[in-house]
Amino acid sequence: MHPTRAVARALKRPPPKSPRSNARLSNTASAGASVSSTIIHNHQSLPERPERPNFPCVDAHAARESKIRASFSSSSSQPRSSRFDGPEPPYARPSPQSYHVYHHKSPLPLTYADPLPAFDIAYETWGTLSPTKDNAILLHTGLSASSHAASTPSNPSEGWWEKFIGPGLPLDTDKFFIICTNVLGGCYGSTGPSSIDPNTNQPYATTFPVLSIFDMVKAQFSLLDDLGIEKLYASVGCSMGAMQSLAAGWQFPKRVGKVVSISGTARSSPSAIAMRFAQRSVLMADPNWNNGFYYDGLPPHTGMKLARQIATITYRSGPEWDLRFGRKVRDLPPPLASAPSDPQHQHPHHHQQHYHQGTVRKPALCPDFLIETYLDYQGEQFCLKYDANSLIYISKAMDLFDMTLPALHSINLKPPHPSPPPHEPHSHHLHPHPQHSNASRLPHQTSHSKSHPPPVNPPPHLPSLAEGLAPLANTPTLILGVQSDILFPVEQQREVADALRMAGNERVSYYELGGVWGHDTFLLDVQNVGGAIRGFL
Amino acid sequence: MHPTRAVARALKRPPPKSPRSNARLSNTASAGASVSSTIIHNHQSLPERPERPNFPCVDAHAARESKIRASFSSSSSQPRSSRFDGPEPPYARPSPQSYHVYHHKSPLPLTYADPLPAFDIAYETWGTLSPTKDNAILLHTGLSASSHAASTPSNPSEGWWEKFIGPGLPLDTDKFFIICTNVLGGCYGSTGPSSIDPNTNQPYATTFPVLSIFDMVKAQFSLLDDLGIEKLYASVGCSMGAMQSLAAGWQFPKRVGKVVSISGTARSSPSAIAMRFAQRSVLMADPNWNNGFYYDGLPPHTGMKLARQIATITYRSGPEWDLRFGRKVRDLPPPLASAPSDPQHQHPHHHQQHYHQGTVRKPALCPDFLIETYLDYQGEQFCLKYDANSLIYISKAMDLFDMTLPALHSINLKPPHPSPPPHEPHSHHLHPHPQHSNASRLPHQTSHSKSHPPPVNPPPHLPSLAEGLAPLANTPTLILGVQSDILFPVEQQREVADALRMAGNERVSYYELGGVWGHDTFLLDVQNVGGAIRGFL
Repeated sequence: MHPTRAVARALKRPPPKSPRSNARLSNTASAGASVSSTIIHNHQSLPERPERPNFPCVDAHAARESKIRASFSSSSSQPRSSRFDGPEPPYARPSPQSYHVYHHKSPLPLTYADPLPAFDIAYETWGTLSPTKDNAILLHTGLSASSHAASTPSNPSEGWWEKFIGPGLPLDTDKFFIICTNVLGGCYGSTGPSSIDPNTNQPYATTFPVLSIFDMVKAQFSLLDDLGIEKLYASVGCSMGAMQSLAAGWQFPKRVGKVVSISGTARSSPSAIAMRFAQRSVLMADPNWNNGFYYDGLPPHTGMKLARQIATITYRSGPEWDLRFGRKVRDLPPPLASAPSDPQHQHPHHHQQHYHQGTVRKPALCPDFLIETYLDYQGEQFCLKYDANSLIYISKAMDLFDMTLPALHSINLKPPHPSPPPHEPHSHHLHPHPQHSNASRLPHQTSHSKSHPPPVNPPPHLPSLAEGLAPLANTPTLILGVQSDILFPVEQQREVADALRMAGNERVSYYELGGVWGHDTFLLDVQNVGGAIRGFL
Repeated sequence: MHPTRAVARALKRPPPKSPRSNARLSNTASAGASVSSTIIHNHQSLPERPERPNFPCVDAHAARESKIRASFSSSSSQPRSSRFDGPEPPYARPSPQSYHVYHHKSPLPLTYADPLPAFDIAYETWGTLSPTKDNAILLHTGLSASSHAASTPSNPSEGWWEKFIGPGLPLDTDKFFIICTNVLGGCYGSTGPSSIDPNTNQPYATTFPVLSIFDMVKAQFSLLDDLGIEKLYASVGCSMGAMQSLAAGWQFPKRVGKVVSISGTARSSPSAIAMRFAQRSVLMADPNWNNGFYYDGLPPHTGMKLARQIATITYRSGPEWDLRFGRKVRDLPPPLASAPSDPQHQHPHHHQQHYHQGTVRKPALCPDFLIETYLDYQGEQFCLKYDANSLIYISKAMDLFDMTLPALHSINLKPPHPSPPPHEPHSHHLHPHPQHSNASRLPHQTSHSKSHPPPVNPPPHLPSLAEGLAPLANTPTLILGVQSDILFPVEQQREVADALRMAGNERVSYYELGGVWGHDTFLLDVQNVGGAIRGFL
């Protein structure tokens, strides 16, 4: 919303009728169109001239903007672009030194653009690097995550994969040295659009070059060079991180011992591109986005909120929402009574309304069903925590990812030779039939399928994907997918596994999980996702 | 985008470097971030200080706004609210008299609000009403359609179901008298938020009452009363129209001979609500929406475009896009050459780019993949053709639709008694096993399943849905669903059929179509959808 207009509208609003309506301004999680009464009796007399309704869900954008504007004027006198750029996530607040930063001083060649003159990579580590430096695992993140995958002594707040990393956990810090980076293009310490361009001393904004997943991986391997790690024990990633994990094994077959790809893909589909396009569109239509040059002004927080709402739809699944929310609606506030409930609680437990016979609950045009308040809340929580341009650039990099041979050729990537074939086959990774995975390591065999049928209608690009993936022919690879994932559907998981096998890889482990968590399963299902990883590593 | 700001930005832009960049302003279908060069050579020297890129896909919103503003100032001196409200679809242009309007002068009781004092229903008809008035079929539309389902003498332009209505066609005008209405709440001649409130002589805007699907059906039956049609031969609807069709048979069991429900539902799911919520959210966040009071100003065209992009994602399916677009990208314009191609052509045929070895196509942050230009185009085409408030109100009515018994009770709807059981069973509609449909009438039996298995994991609400649907127990009903539909998934089609059978309905015909067209199948698959309807009627 245009700031002046939004503020003007906020000021022009008639004086609140009750303490509630004022308090509601920032109560977006339970925002509804509050008209004169919320319980009405049916079939009453003809209406009088109605008042103009107000829309707390719309006012929330103006209120947020006012709040940001106020925090601007009260903060340092320096222009914002010369301060730390990119919004800080809550877990980064305890200490700006809670992650390491690797400075790379020479140019990084890029897939689609001129080289990046220099760059930073923020990273954190867990466990101890062995004297021979042979126990390192590089963990790749999803789109918006930071390097803070798990708590550390310098930052004890919970990380995004807290239950997967630690002594005795799937990424076992008693055995492995885990490295997680903020991705190139991100806003949590690594160089991205919000970083200062050394040529201009201004944030790059949209002069930042379009990145590829391969560029991101190259930047990570510069860090590994710096750490003296010649060969990774494994490369592990989920979602976009799974793309990076495959790309890492592909670009550096001799430097990656094993590849784990969870809920990713080797070729972004038009459906996934469509969902990310919708997010970029709402973001770029926010006037605050200002063609990406917002670092001295107000960020496009409304566009970010809308984008996150759309993203959240793709992260979970219908069946989960059926179980969790169904058609429940938010509690109606007791008329003119106590203050609104705290909108900060993560999962408001509202219940199906029951009314006396004869009264009908009046629905709101603002969020009213719990599924709506949930999406509203997810958007609200995210919209000031992540840099809008990072979202645009990184989601574009995901769209561009395609490991079919013609696509690799079109960006001048020449497939390297695979790593040498194993001298003695790891029998526990060899499958008697290439379509069968070694499922015996999973704690709960009922929650995944042990095999997937040979492709009946293989996608037309499968052979060219197999050609493209040839450099991974000798790398043990775990492909794990989730049947309820609508963003990286299970067909794409099967496709990667099939293509790897067609490329001659005899050490492909394939898992397919059930459950209702959709794409987010990798964040939630420690038992099955973690079990598969533990078994594979 | 805020108009002043948008125009200011457009004016501030540095003078175009070439005729192209100017012409591109309105070329949204092929809009891309045009930076200095679109083909670059990899691994060149370090970049010079980059120019600020421009974003034609963003500029398009400002250009559209300028165009609308210009058309305002050149149009009549009357305030807009006293002229015809609601944007006119192209097919309504030939003659404003191309549809009939039924004026209802007494109040219409509403589910969630005080009665509507009076209302209009726009409608069109095809075929001839029989002397006994027993051959009428009421056709219900999807969310945004007008009454123009097929061409008429007074409006020869193609209707939205052109190939389904006519002599010898599935809705056979040699036999039947077809009536299609613009829905209450719509903007194509029926009363909706853009209509004048007689109490204020201003458009209702968001003082318009929240509607239910049942309200819409009641308004339609007032028209039937006026036409002297006591009993419909059948009620037929697709998408939201399928909800209305079920509601019609439910509210007026003795007045509806048969019910056809195509790609609808009897209970909106949280997933569908989420997708419609996302559309309403982007619309309501457009500053032009102005809490719904935009009829004297600029409409929220950018929000409408974004909403339509999201909607379009739900109307088709991933497999169709795989086949149709895959990962193809738009043609790059020849550098500094001829004018951009006409953005008005419906489906630009771009092709996979092939470049000489060594050159890499530079991706754009604006629409670049064909799936993106397709969504962009669909949004652009729609954004000035439909009233934003109508979209909000009608999509909300869809969300609110729930025919489970407790939900019906909560809105004071008492299930009427079913129509009397048939005296002699129509043997061709009786199924030997309730799970089997009479598939023999379909022209292509391979494209649908003849049966669906008994529900293994019936949804918990199935019994209460069966209780709710009891008034339909004796009404022959056709339920048709599409396996690739992500908006009204096939599970919901099965659910309706199962619930009807549980309610004792022995004349349920159930069809399930394959194919890749998703929810839009009902608009496209004349052979199978039309065949099922023809057989059933």
